[in-house]
Amino acid sequence: MKVIEISTSKRIEMIDITSHIRRVVKESNVRDGIVVVYVPHTTAGITINENADPSVAKDIENTLSRLVPAGKGYLHMEGNADSHIKSTIVGSSINVIIENGELILGTWQGIFFCEFDGPRRRKVYVKIIEG
Amino acid sequence: MKVIEISTSKRIEMIDITSHIRRVVKESNVRDGIVVVYVPHTTAGITINENADPSVAKDIENTLSRLVPAGKGYLHMEGNADSHIKSTIVGSSINVIIENGELILGTWQGIFFCEFDGPRRRKVYVKIIEG
Amino acid sequence: MKVIEISTSKRIEMIDITSHIRRVVKESNVRDGIVVVYVPHTTAGITINENADPSVAKDIENTLSRLVPAGKGYLHMEGNADSHIKSTIVGSSINVIIENGELILGTWQGIFFCEFDGPRRRKVYVKIIEG
Repeated sequence: MKVIEISTSKRIEMIDITSHIRRVVKESNVRDGIVVVYVPHTTAGITINENADPSVAKDIENTLSRLVPAGKGYLHMEGNADSHIKSTIVGSSINVIIENGELILGTWQGIFFCEFDGPRRRKVYVKIIEG
Repeated sequence: MKVIEISTSKRIEMIDITSHIRRVVKESNVRDGIVVVYVPHTTAGITINENADPSVAKDIENTLSRLVPAGKGYLHMEGNADSHIKSTIVGSSINVIIENGELILGTWQGIFFCEFDGPRRRKVYVKIIEG
Repeated sequence: MKVIEISTSKRIEMIDITSHIRRVVKESNVRDGIVVVYVPHTTAGITINENADPSVAKDIENTLSRLVPAGKGYLHMEGNADSHIKSTIVGSSINVIIENGELILGTWQGIFFCEFDGPRRRKVYVKIIEG
């Protein structure tokens, strides 16, 4: 398992980590299998979406905050109940297929770390399964 | 990795691809492991849900469109910001367990390709990991 | 594959099953790999979130029910259309990494079975892939 460390700079922020994951796959020398990208935090998530136009990530952030606004009305008293809920909606891990040593993403796909309660220092776990 | 090709006929449409996945599992002759079903598109998703009553898929489509409507109010200018957001909510891949050469779905479960910006020709990647 | 059986006592209820999953991992004697935790039901889900303050799970339940209320307005006639939709939003499976024989969860993370149409007797499938 490899650990990637990232720093986020806003409360809500999607950060493209595709190049980090690609590097871990390259350095593993694994030809075929899957890579599991996992976030060990309960107020963050991980998703795959378009990384060509940064407006897409912004629209995702804005829509999640419209559906699950920060603020009052929650039982959890730490002021980040919305962040936990966003984490469950987006999910804590993704899988991507590895073939011929390459991460097999679609043309427009990138892998995003989703910060929902930043700014913070965060970790992402990367595990490759050969097969 | 196997590639399944499908054609969608509406803007938003859930298509049952269970039989395709079952066939890939059979043809692999793998007895035990997992199958990863992955969508390489940023305006589509993949989910597991009931495939007995087609109303269930319709209710999912309608509710996602109520929560994340198509149209104005997004930054992404291609008219499909809602499709990208739906993709992140639903997710880009699923795992199903394989045991004794069979896909182990629950009684009412089917695997659905979720089109959020059709009609289009689409691909689904299927990767089996033995273990 | 191991099967965990649980009983739920409310219509909507998140149940912490972390200790069950930890036990399956221990008993497998697998040192490194991933564990796939899979729900074979179409009106339930599985998620990872904070298990220290029970208010977090309550906030997730309440917010999902605000976004996707039970009741009328759905095509599926069994009175649990909302449960199916919640299942697709939350997801039917999760992956967690195993290292040195331990489940590698973040400090605040627990694994929750999400009942969306209880009370019922339910199953969770647990599959370990070495690697």
